[in-house]
Amino acid sequence: MSVRAAAADPALAAGAAWIDGELLPAAEARIPILDTGFVRSDLTYDVVSVWRGSFFRLDDHLARFERNWRRLRLTPPFGLGEMRELLIEMVRRSGLADAYVAMILTRGVPAPGERDPRRFVNRFYAYAVPFVWIQRPDQQKEGAHLVVARETVRISPRAVDPTVKNFHWGDLVRGLYEAYDRGGSLAVLTDGAGNVTEGPGFNLFALVDGVLRTPADGVFDGMTRRTLIELVEEEGIVPLRVAPLTVAELERAEEVLLSSTAGGVMPVTTLDGRAVGDGRPGALTLRLRERYWRAHEEPRFATPVPA
Amino acid sequence: MSVRAAAADPALAAGAAWIDGELLPAAEARIPILDTGFVRSDLTYDVVSVWRGSFFRLDDHLARFERNWRRLRLTPPFGLGEMRELLIEMVRRSGLADAYVAMILTRGVPAPGERDPRRFVNRFYAYAVPFVWIQRPDQQKEGAHLVVARETVRISPRAVDPTVKNFHWGDLVRGLYEAYDRGGSLAVLTDGAGNVTEGPGFNLFALVDGVLRTPADGVFDGMTRRTLIELVEEEGIVPLRVAPLTVAELERAEEVLLSSTAGGVMPVTTLDGRAVGDGRPGALTLRLRERYWRAHEEPRFATPVPA
Repeated sequence: MSVRAAAADPALAAGAAWIDGELLPAAEARIPILDTGFVRSDLTYDVVSVWRGSFFRLDDHLARFERNWRRLRLTPPFGLGEMRELLIEMVRRSGLADAYVAMILTRGVPAPGERDPRRFVNRFYAYAVPFVWIQRPDQQKEGAHLVVARETVRISPRAVDPTVKNFHWGDLVRGLYEAYDRGGSLAVLTDGAGNVTEGPGFNLFALVDGVLRTPADGVFDGMTRRTLIELVEEEGIVPLRVAPLTVAELERAEEVLLSSTAGGVMPVTTLDGRAVGDGRPGALTLRLRERYWRAHEEPRFATPVPA
Repeated sequence: MSVRAAAADPALAAGAAWIDGELLPAAEARIPILDTGFVRSDLTYDVVSVWRGSFFRLDDHLARFERNWRRLRLTPPFGLGEMRELLIEMVRRSGLADAYVAMILTRGVPAPGERDPRRFVNRFYAYAVPFVWIQRPDQQKEGAHLVVARETVRISPRAVDPTVKNFHWGDLVRGLYEAYDRGGSLAVLTDGAGNVTEGPGFNLFALVDGVLRTPADGVFDGMTRRTLIELVEEEGIVPLRVAPLTVAELERAEEVLLSSTAGGVMPVTTLDGRAVGDGRPGALTLRLRERYWRAHEEPRFATPVPA
């Protein structure tokens, strides 16, 4: 790591990346084509947001990232403390007040002819870009048109562990095209046995018979999901159940919402072309969205980026 | 495309890559970190070998590549004819007589904030490196120590189509670590229902009760696999059956072999620590290996790289 304190750099205002000890504009940042992070998607990553000048749950993201790289038996080139410092400095130098910050640890570039992944030197990359919305605030008034993918199922946890955040999005993108073909804007995938899992970059919650439900297994433990679970439990906002959720249950939900670092809490207003509830963002969804964003001001969650 | 005929370049002798209209040493070749080919593994690719100065089944590889990019609804920046020319010129300029040549088409880099993959401009990359062996010729005397993964199953075709060649290797790498932990050198994965599928970068054949067997479903239609099937059928070398193969059948096989563009036909001598046959490369395996390599001289399969 060789990032030194300096003033915010206008050249990084559209996004910054940290590659091989250098900070550079994200649009110019490149990784080796021979990195097995690309040619095998052999990596884990994490994404943390910065909102109004503060990281949200930075240390929780870092702890999860560490757990996941250990599960893949990866070794970063430096420790968690340095990584934390580097992310903060990268965002500070970009000058971005609201950002989407990714950290990636790949298996790395093999020596010529080498096939044994235990012998590769793992590589760390990071970038910060302006805050990303799966659904922009103006789109949230209309809400998402969600489709339950029929032809595509989520990759099984027996194949790839969904709790180790990964770029195996083939199923999710295929599901998204299914949604487009059926007039939807977003897709959620099932496990192939009638249970709802997750969609491209988001977890799902549904209010069914007055109980807020979210799938328990075969999904990523997203930080927005975790935050909603914690806030709902702490404040007793609504009865909550983290357990398998069937498609049939989803179909009779009074409200459906999506949760993601890329946009927070986002209402779903149609499911497979039919209105959810009265077809407008639900009261509980709006309440949780407001509560989620308010949490960004709480010192327990916020790590300010120094000026 | 802007590759112009020129002499072989010693700077490319360790490998060449084609990125954004430029030929450069493979070790220096980089792709944008924001390419969804990396951050979503949203792409397809193909790999063709060059052996003793000739591409092997180049047009079959290109036809398969085209079929696969169409299935993902990708559009390359130029046509198949130009791509073919570019690959040949890249290898010619590298001066490599024996090479592993990859072509990759990614969904591309989104415009800032854009999430709809239909709006991305797809990107083409290619590289040629010295010929890659999953098992080097000297290692083939001992043969592979294959392990059937128990904790990891192959990604289901209902999630990600294995016939559309992809970099979703999370299950395969996880299986490989299982193999290492159990004293093996390579792993083959099942479909989770008792059927053998494939391993990291290879298909599998087994001689069971005098019949050469290879799994039919849930596997990539590898070019080496296809070549073996065609040669065995044309010449009636041995009865052949392309159909589901159970782990129980694999366990009583007289011979087991792996097929891959990265190494051809490679013998397996132990399975889960027990000898296959007499624990040495089998007679049929050696015959098929010899036949496979001889096919590289046949005009129907060979496309010479001009000097």
